[in-house]
Amino acid sequence: MNTAFINLNDTICALSTPAGSGAIGVVRLSGPDAADISLQFVEISRDVTAETIVPRMVYFGKFMVMGELLDEVLITYFKNPHSYNGQDIVEISCHGSVFIQQRILEALLSAGARLAEPGEFTLRGFLNGKFDLSQAEAVADLIASNSVASHRLAMQQMRGGFSLKIGELRARLIDFASLIELELDFSEEDVEFADRHALFDLLGKIKSELESLKSSFALGNVMKHGIPVAIAGAPNVGKSTLLNALLNEERAIVSEIPGTTRDAIEDTISIQGTTFRFIDTAGIRHSDDVVENIGIGRTFEKMNQAAVVLYVFDINTTTEKEIDEALASIRNQLDDPEKQIILVANKTDMLGEAPHSFRKLVELDTLFVSAKRNENINLITERLLKSARQGDSTDQTVVYSLRHYEALSRASQSIASIEEGFANGIPSDLIAIDIRQALHHLGSITGEVTTDELLGNIFGKFCIGK
Amino acid sequence: MNTAFINLNDTICALSTPAGSGAIGVVRLSGPDAADISLQFVEISRDVTAETIVPRMVYFGKFMVMGELLDEVLITYFKNPHSYNGQDIVEISCHGSVFIQQRILEALLSAGARLAEPGEFTLRGFLNGKFDLSQAEAVADLIASNSVASHRLAMQQMRGGFSLKIGELRARLIDFASLIELELDFSEEDVEFADRHALFDLLGKIKSELESLKSSFALGNVMKHGIPVAIAGAPNVGKSTLLNALLNEERAIVSEIPGTTRDAIEDTISIQGTTFRFIDTAGIRHSDDVVENIGIGRTFEKMNQAAVVLYVFDINTTTEKEIDEALASIRNQLDDPEKQIILVANKTDMLGEAPHSFRKLVELDTLFVSAKRNENINLITERLLKSARQGDSTDQTVVYSLRHYEALSRASQSIASIEEGFANGIPSDLIAIDIRQALHHLGSITGEVTTDELLGNIFGKFCIGK
Repeated sequence: MNTAFINLNDTICALSTPAGSGAIGVVRLSGPDAADISLQFVEISRDVTAETIVPRMVYFGKFMVMGELLDEVLITYFKNPHSYNGQDIVEISCHGSVFIQQRILEALLSAGARLAEPGEFTLRGFLNGKFDLSQAEAVADLIASNSVASHRLAMQQMRGGFSLKIGELRARLIDFASLIELELDFSEEDVEFADRHALFDLLGKIKSELESLKSSFALGNVMKHGIPVAIAGAPNVGKSTLLNALLNEERAIVSEIPGTTRDAIEDTISIQGTTFRFIDTAGIRHSDDVVENIGIGRTFEKMNQAAVVLYVFDINTTTEKEIDEALASIRNQLDDPEKQIILVANKTDMLGEAPHSFRKLVELDTLFVSAKRNENINLITERLLKSARQGDSTDQTVVYSLRHYEALSRASQSIASIEEGFANGIPSDLIAIDIRQALHHLGSITGEVTTDELLGNIFGKFCIGK
Repeated sequence: MNTAFINLNDTICALSTPAGSGAIGVVRLSGPDAADISLQFVEISRDVTAETIVPRMVYFGKFMVMGELLDEVLITYFKNPHSYNGQDIVEISCHGSVFIQQRILEALLSAGARLAEPGEFTLRGFLNGKFDLSQAEAVADLIASNSVASHRLAMQQMRGGFSLKIGELRARLIDFASLIELELDFSEEDVEFADRHALFDLLGKIKSELESLKSSFALGNVMKHGIPVAIAGAPNVGKSTLLNALLNEERAIVSEIPGTTRDAIEDTISIQGTTFRFIDTAGIRHSDDVVENIGIGRTFEKMNQAAVVLYVFDINTTTEKEIDEALASIRNQLDDPEKQIILVANKTDMLGEAPHSFRKLVELDTLFVSAKRNENINLITERLLKSARQGDSTDQTVVYSLRHYEALSRASQSIASIEEGFANGIPSDLIAIDIRQALHHLGSITGEVTTDELLGNIFGKFCIGK
């Protein structure tokens, strides 16, 4: 990351719409000369100059290069500080031709603008105090969001919900620090000014809030990347066919030979805006085949990672006793014995005329489907949606960024050091160091504390033109 | 093409920026309910309704779906008739997330908008008389333009230069028709009212203008698709290496075996905005190999199609006499003996210490290069640019659309029938039929005469959202 990156006096420009041909392309400029530079090329019908142009008004204009008409454009000027990033911004909306967009950028560069680095428009908003660092990060997450859940997470963070929580935590820590500082000031008098009980109380509150944020990270991950659903069951009961029916396309290899799905295959689908990550697993059975045994080991690993397990069996060849035993064996090997297991009785298309009793299965809320004929697959998706919505918590602040999780963990470690210091009678001035550490880690989330490297890492992942 | 396609009362919507993730996406609505529908979802901070919204002013707003914030957007209303297509248009500029764009479109559809067909925004502009058909077609060409020349052609047509020419032609034809009609009115009196000389004169003018437009089609094609440059020369003189040096990448197979380039390979490069289509050819030499002889036959075919021929030879093994003979033989077989041939002396890297006399070659303006070492290749591109610019005619109206060329040809045939009719003393009322035919064909270019099928063909090739 070069140092020019944080120079706010350059006027930067970039294509802000996706690359390629389309009806409309938008080229954006940001910086003190945005209006001057763009009006060197855009002729607006009336007597409009950088001084007289009305902010937020869309003007029709002719983009002229060396006396030749390049394009008919719409141009809008956003005057600082009333713009996305607090700087002067100009948006030029042109025909979505790659050639025209390229020529417009060339013209702007020739007049003294510079190509924007990825995320530089947003970085300037952060540097201008338009939003904090976690909100800026959420802009990139919002653009990348691909489901109701990941969109909601990013939007909540962009709107400042998370920043507010961090702000509260920092305020509490500063209260705590001021009590400690009071002790320091009077340390020669050997008086414990701060009420130790009150101090411990405050520390406990900070700690529990930190832990609650940290623990939301698991949920945040699931919301962002999709709810993991493992498809388990004995070999050849139709797990791959079921996965295909769910994915509605032939992504897994379907075969008649038992045990052909050795590797866990992952695929995601979005059902009514909720993303599910389906995990096809090797069949569960005892085997002497080493490769297959590794696959079975992985199966249990995947089931442990999953939020829900679909246990599939062949309705024609499986007895109720076998199902009971299989369920017991699975629960036995899962870390969480309460994990939701949905029973799926497959191959209903092959059911003969002979009378069956499914009373026990019905009691277990079994879903009866034919993956091959694509029958009743909707029962599975409905059940999954229902269980997903039980876990829906809209109001809670959810951490979904690994960077934030790590900063929270470091802050948490500092708090633990403070507690330890109290317990061991460490002098207040040493404890103050740990407090500053905790404040530093929390501040790195919202950007009160940053380095060029940190900014480079965060904004380098943005798309160009944002 | 369904009939809804030309219903101007529907409010249509579409994503107008290229599909995919980016900083900004623009969703556009067009139709009588554009403002009403969009303001059902976009909450603007002040008391802004479809009645009070100021046209052409950019508003910040919150796009709400079922009480939940989907995105922070910018919204602009263009009031009819002061919009791109003369209808009410609303542009919603959102974060460039595929998910958000999709949800915005879903919301608009749920409120009564309909997804736009490809080109439907522009079609409405044509139906509203904002521009004629050839200008509408030029919008699509402008978006697809990828060079200075193809951009200039489309821009000229979009600005109406071609429409003006066609308008003049139609006006002349109508003058002519009125003279003929005059004869018809007084036909019972057996008087030849119209001065036959004046009629022939007018017809001659129309014909020569039609022919001049028709003949510009060859130039239009070259300008649109690039200037064809054939690379010719004996086998193993380094033609493929030279092409690679020109293309700056390894697209043709380079080999040490003479005669390995059997098929003519085409590739285009853009030098300072001018597109050249390079055609690598099989070597020119006498051969008994049937396949190779076919290749050589093709070589001359390609040279005839080319605007410029690069004749490449090995400076180390070719005598001046051989070059003279080769040039004479090429000129002999070319349809146009005046075609520009640029001599390229290759392999200067292998020149020994022995003194050479290149006086004759220098007189012939030979370019000395080493394709292998990428030396002096710029001399070739400069020479090509120079010759391309000699042919640059900016003011002339140039036809580049096959549809227009065909309509002009049909109009031309009708004019020929009129002339023939005159010559053979055909009655004026029969000649009037041919005049109407000629007017019909010219009218189909600018859209005075259209069918749903024609409109469907033209606008169906547009991108969605334009």
